[in-house]
Amino acid sequence: MSIASELKLIAPATIPEVRPEDCLATLITEACLRENIPWNSQSVVVIAQKIVSKAEGAIVDLRTLQPSVRAESYAREHDKDARLVELVLRQSRRIVRMERGLIISETRHGFVCANAGVDRSNVPGEHFATVLPEDPDASARAVQKGLLERTGLDIAVVITDTFGRAWRVGLVNVAIGVAGFQPVENLQGQTDREGRPLNATSPAIADEIAAAAGLLMAKNAGRPVVIVEGLSLRVSEATATQLVRSPEDDLFR
Amino acid sequence: MSIASELKLIAPATIPEVRPEDCLATLITEACLRENIPWNSQSVVVIAQKIVSKAEGAIVDLRTLQPSVRAESYAREHDKDARLVELVLRQSRRIVRMERGLIISETRHGFVCANAGVDRSNVPGEHFATVLPEDPDASARAVQKGLLERTGLDIAVVITDTFGRAWRVGLVNVAIGVAGFQPVENLQGQTDREGRPLNATSPAIADEIAAAAGLLMAKNAGRPVVIVEGLSLRVSEATATQLVRSPEDDLFR
Repeated sequence: MSIASELKLIAPATIPEVRPEDCLATLITEACLRENIPWNSQSVVVIAQKIVSKAEGAIVDLRTLQPSVRAESYAREHDKDARLVELVLRQSRRIVRMERGLIISETRHGFVCANAGVDRSNVPGEHFATVLPEDPDASARAVQKGLLERTGLDIAVVITDTFGRAWRVGLVNVAIGVAGFQPVENLQGQTDREGRPLNATSPAIADEIAAAAGLLMAKNAGRPVVIVEGLSLRVSEATATQLVRSPEDDLFR
Repeated sequence: MSIASELKLIAPATIPEVRPEDCLATLITEACLRENIPWNSQSVVVIAQKIVSKAEGAIVDLRTLQPSVRAESYAREHDKDARLVELVLRQSRRIVRMERGLIISETRHGFVCANAGVDRSNVPGEHFATVLPEDPDASARAVQKGLLERTGLDIAVVITDTFGRAWRVGLVNVAIGVAGFQPVENLQGQTDREGRPLNATSPAIADEIAAAAGLLMAKNAGRPVVIVEGLSLRVSEATATQLVRSPEDDLFR
């Protein structure tokens, strides 16, 4: 990555409430046009998972779920909604920790997070929750394609969700889907300014972009999209699965 | 935090190589003046740990270290410099994982990271390594005070280092010291746009600021300082220890 000395992040204010089958590329293009937000082929469009899930209909009516005995029992023990616990369990392929009322698990995509990405905030209707998109990389590529059709520009896309971390307090926005660039920069082979190899230094660029956008995306703000200007990303067809540590490298399973 | 719709990050290009006893506030003020980088009382100054350690003389001459048997043995087994392993062990108050050539440990500050923050990259001289500042919050407050004296502005300061994460590949820049603002925003008591409480939602603002700055700080770039404009942070005397999960809440010890 060549180094920008200036970065600009802009969150359009006029993205409407997203509904199933809405075209995100259209909503984003229209908002940017309306608000005179410029972009170019170096722009990155960062999109909160919540609106991707809504557009893709990744919304579950909790009334349709029959909680398992395990879900019922955990919900009772920790004063939770058994249907939500059931949904979290169904969205998990492996439980990492299930204690103290928390469920930290691995989703089918390989992401380790709380509640398997199930979220009720900012979902209309009291019986509904969003789940993560089926394939967030495919979602990112679809938006990228839509933006290309509408603007003629091949714009990089990041889809984000807010995850907790081991050892650190608070949530940060991370990348769960990417299109158009290398999400983890590999500096292997490069040297520091003293000429020593930078072997261990692989910045998770996509996660840093997501975190930066997170500063503008606070949940109650209705700003689910951020345009980033000033990055020079390495073009790539890589996916966000590059950000997922493989089981054999994972010391914290 | 009131929501900015636009953020700007600028990395001055003329911060010189930092030496022990240099005044960072002076170096930063002078670079910004030279490069016409504007700031105001809402600005946040983000500083890479490396130059803070250099300015504070937190540099160790590896030749002065007598490696322990444990360090010698681990170094031999994994083809590492025994003096570096020794330094990492001395900088650790608890080993979290020590296998496969990695050392993930808890520093005296409570940070869990690889190599206890010991780093040789961009340190002049082949026998030297930097260690983390003794008290990064105190370092941040000292810079804040220096900036106040030079500019009349009470500017928030973040000191950052790049940490790996459990479960995710690649490094991200995180906050290890803060001054002047609330590093973890607590949205407890606030509601989402549907009126539901946002109980679990505490964005780690300081870490998102650090990550954003990380996009401009890539190691080989000589850009160890980033000025962030457009945030409305909650003024606070809180420290970065708020970002450290307490042992009793830590499920991954």
